[in-house]
Amino acid sequence: MSLTEQLLVRPGTRVDLRAIDARSSPGISEKDARQGLAPLVEEIARLQYRLWAEQRHAVLLVLEGTDTSGKDGTIRHVLSGVNPQGVLVTSFKVPTPIELRHDFLWRIHARTPGRGRIAVFNRSHYQDVFVVRVESLAPEAVWRARYRQINDFERLLTESGVALIKCFLHISREEQHERLSARLDDPEKQWKFSMGDLATRAKWDAYRAAFEDALSECSTEHAPWHVIPADRKWFRNYAVASLVLETLRSLDPHPPAADFDVTEARRALDTLR
Amino acid sequence: MSLTEQLLVRPGTRVDLRAIDARSSPGISEKDARQGLAPLVEEIARLQYRLWAEQRHAVLLVLEGTDTSGKDGTIRHVLSGVNPQGVLVTSFKVPTPIELRHDFLWRIHARTPGRGRIAVFNRSHYQDVFVVRVESLAPEAVWRARYRQINDFERLLTESGVALIKCFLHISREEQHERLSARLDDPEKQWKFSMGDLATRAKWDAYRAAFEDALSECSTEHAPWHVIPADRKWFRNYAVASLVLETLRSLDPHPPAADFDVTEARRALDTLR
Repeated sequence: MSLTEQLLVRPGTRVDLRAIDARSSPGISEKDARQGLAPLVEEIARLQYRLWAEQRHAVLLVLEGTDTSGKDGTIRHVLSGVNPQGVLVTSFKVPTPIELRHDFLWRIHARTPGRGRIAVFNRSHYQDVFVVRVESLAPEAVWRARYRQINDFERLLTESGVALIKCFLHISREEQHERLSARLDDPEKQWKFSMGDLATRAKWDAYRAAFEDALSECSTEHAPWHVIPADRKWFRNYAVASLVLETLRSLDPHPPAADFDVTEARRALDTLR
Repeated sequence: MSLTEQLLVRPGTRVDLRAIDARSSPGISEKDARQGLAPLVEEIARLQYRLWAEQRHAVLLVLEGTDTSGKDGTIRHVLSGVNPQGVLVTSFKVPTPIELRHDFLWRIHARTPGRGRIAVFNRSHYQDVFVVRVESLAPEAVWRARYRQINDFERLLTESGVALIKCFLHISREEQHERLSARLDDPEKQWKFSMGDLATRAKWDAYRAAFEDALSECSTEHAPWHVIPADRKWFRNYAVASLVLETLRSLDPHPPAADFDVTEARRALDTLR
């Protein structure tokens, strides 16, 4: 079984996050993961260039996970090295008053990738079944309908040439304590800390239940979820890079053939010495 | 005189592109430029992270130059390696019908960087005094007024915390022939060629005059132009990276201090073991 198959949430199954060891690193050693990342990133960059040239498919990487799970760090490690001209990163925050006047997928749809692009969602439409549920920002009938609405929306995207890669960065409660603590200790990192992180941490189990339901309900054949054990950053980076690369390889992008007469173009160019 | 001072268009002076050797590489050898690029990019990435943390200033890199002058390649070489979460690249194409219903700066303004970001314009509002002038897409009174409108707009940006870096990639007519020719020869590169490139090349002198006027009229104290000799890609990359790095250094970004009581936060965290 490949690494990415091991991380897959098989459609129709229930996710139990407590049964997945956040410190695990299935199938790869620390040394191999650290040394193996750069070649993966290089091949991602190479294939991204071809994806861009072909303008046929797009890739959408969705990163979810609780505070400190490493969403920012994953983007930095996996996608630095890729031409930023082809990459569009969106961090979804608390919706603005204007966004709230629309359906929850309105602002999301606007940031999906055009053909030839890689888009990254740092948090996503899944916040509307995570925080909205746990904080009771909408009635249950509203957020519960969203599982289907999300699946329909993601099907539209995949049917329109967008390959989705959905990664849930799974960290343990102990690891989160370590990371929040490290942020408080280092004046250079304090800006990353917010008191709101603690309010969220206090509801750990309620969030876990919300994560598990969404991962179970919205892991589909067209857009499956992957749970990435993320206590070890080196494993997290290697695993997400592997998923991105595997997806790009499966799209097998090729620069398009000339849409003009090459001999004619050559002649015309030579008259313009 | 520093490298970047040598490339500067001193405000109030006339640019004569024929007097600037596109094959030159003032002040640096090929070996030093090639070896020196990676450390520049690394420091750009480091300072970009602090710019992002501080959320106080923004950087806007404007890349102009004729077809094949290397705008895409510059972005790839100078900004791959920087976290794409902090970089927003926009390639301005022929305006859409909706864009044409607005003033020429409308679509441009929408893509300027928010605090903490680096934006890159691959072509820009200067197309509205280049192609619009040469192809007579607007009356002279309209495009001529744009020099002032551009200067006013760029002053607004700089007064609002955006540092502008404007680079004109200057290639020779011979070098363009080489590069177009190479695109025609290589099936992997043919997609980059368009017959329109030849129509533009046929008007080389008219474009040169338009470039010279804009570079002269719009090199201001707040947003000066730089002319980058760009026949040598290694010099072009090194020079643009130097300009970006110099700008980031001058902004001297620092992560902000905690906006909460650290002792209190530590106590609250420890109650949530």
